[in-house]
Amino acid sequence: MQDNRSENVVLIGKKPTMNYVVACLTLFNSGKAPVVVRARGMAISRAIDTVQLLGKAFVKNLEIKDINIGTQEFMKEDVESSSSTIEITINKPSPNVIQIESGKNKGD
Amino acid sequence: MQDNRSENVVLIGKKPTMNYVVACLTLFNSGKAPVVVRARGMAISRAIDTVQLLGKAFVKNLEIKDINIGTQEFMKEDVESSSSTIEITINKPSPNVIQIESGKNKGD
Repeated sequence: MQDNRSENVVLIGKKPTMNYVVACLTLFNSGKAPVVVRARGMAISRAIDTVQLLGKAFVKNLEIKDINIGTQEFMKEDVESSSSTIEITINKPSPNVIQIESGKNKGD
Repeated sequence: MQDNRSENVVLIGKKPTMNYVVACLTLFNSGKAPVVVRARGMAISRAIDTVQLLGKAFVKNLEIKDINIGTQEFMKEDVESSSSTIEITINKPSPNVIQIESGKNKGD
């Protein structure tokens, strides 16, 4: 179920939040929307930071389509362990190209 | 808006997850439903742990009514700072009293 849309997924890890914001913007700009932001464990708060920063600074009227929480079970050093997960599905409202401000003056 | 329902809120902090699960159960058992589980920053993952543990171990068919994410701004050492927040609204499906297993045998 999650394999056929894995190209639209941004998996949140331990890098700075801005890296994941850029990853989302890259997907949006290449026409891949909606985008799923996925995280587990302590990275969950960074997933929310990513979506909030994206909506505040880069994508006006960012649409949060869906938020799902769940549990993922895995083996850690031969012991069964589990971790909470979050999946935030976001969409940009219009097909306009999103631009990151890069110091260039517009209108030349 | 959030003041008049503050008695139904479980604010997640740094204590063990189980403490917050018991807090939710206490609210449910005193007839206060739905319950809002609220957290910010690094406590967000614990909020999701709380809801997942509650649904898996204590309240069958726990209903997750709503999940909201947001940003809270505050002053930290005279510097404006912001933090991501989550609010998970949960409800128990039926008015049955929830019991925590406490080693007592049932049916005596």
